[in-house]
Amino acid sequence: MSELSLHPAAQDLLFREARTANTFTDEPVTEEQVRAVYDLVKYAPTAYNMSPLRVVLVRSADARERLGELMADGNRQKTLAAPLAAILATDNEFHEELPSLLPHFPQAKDLLFADRAVREESALVNGVLQAAYFILGVRAAGLAAGPMTGFDFPGVQKEFLDDDHTPLMVVNIGKPGPDAWFPRSPRLDYGQVVTSV
Amino acid sequence: MSELSLHPAAQDLLFREARTANTFTDEPVTEEQVRAVYDLVKYAPTAYNMSPLRVVLVRSADARERLGELMADGNRQKTLAAPLAAILATDNEFHEELPSLLPHFPQAKDLLFADRAVREESALVNGVLQAAYFILGVRAAGLAAGPMTGFDFPGVQKEFLDDDHTPLMVVNIGKPGPDAWFPRSPRLDYGQVVTSV
Repeated sequence: MSELSLHPAAQDLLFREARTANTFTDEPVTEEQVRAVYDLVKYAPTAYNMSPLRVVLVRSADARERLGELMADGNRQKTLAAPLAAILATDNEFHEELPSLLPHFPQAKDLLFADRAVREESALVNGVLQAAYFILGVRAAGLAAGPMTGFDFPGVQKEFLDDDHTPLMVVNIGKPGPDAWFPRSPRLDYGQVVTSV
Repeated sequence: MSELSLHPAAQDLLFREARTANTFTDEPVTEEQVRAVYDLVKYAPTAYNMSPLRVVLVRSADARERLGELMADGNRQKTLAAPLAAILATDNEFHEELPSLLPHFPQAKDLLFADRAVREESALVNGVLQAAYFILGVRAAGLAAGPMTGFDFPGVQKEFLDDDHTPLMVVNIGKPGPDAWFPRSPRLDYGQVVTSV
């Protein structure tokens, strides 16, 4: 513990006691809460500050119904019942923003990211990094996140995005409800994950 | 601010004041510090708890020299000078651990992940999620991280990994040194990133 500067309460909030929630209370998740999450996690790093993550908050009853139809069976009910469901996606045309995001190297847009396939690969990796920051940001707001990749990806893209945006995951967000999670599964030991040369 | 449960000091430590460092002091990064980082971030979620991230700490002078040779010109000197450099990689054979990692669904190994291409795609996405957790974990230890993707990927795989492990990034780790970072670049506004339907 003493090797960490992060306060133990913050360790618990973000990592040790936080869990992937499968049920939620009815308490709404406000626009102000989502804004506070974004205004925290936007600072975490991406390559070339490319910041490709985009978020679609599925708020209306109609939109939630359409999203539910596209979720895998095991994810449908919790997605319909969550106070908020967010589609996390990458913008494969993120390079359009690079001249303002990377003012000391505005040539990056044309020099490095003229090719769509290169952009898609970079947007995937850096969008997933930002998705992880977002999940921890939801926890920083005292909310539980329920990230899911069990859904019809082309269907979600067609229904909620466009050809330039690729879905990464859907995240249910809210206060955890009754029986919100399974018992914690084991983790790998340090020696199974970290080696030295 | 008040929308967040996370203490403002923790917000600063992990997100607002933390920066990608390009220079470091000579203060060593100990095994105990890396272990504390891992033992914190290992709890953050991956799909099916697959936990594909593997970390190679490049500690010996010889190994650091070999890594330096494989870094892009702009990343070589800082990688040679950092107290610690870590190669973050995915294990594309992560499914071998699934029966112990996912005790309530041990069939996942053969039912979902028998195909190597499926494993590689899942290992990439979930390995990058864990890389993001790791970067924030380094910051939780009061250290600065310098994640880099500018290096010879096949070379790093050949020199430090094997055919079953794919490099994701190299992260320099240590206490920030003089002139450790550029001025913070702009971030996208909330309205450029988050929409509602």
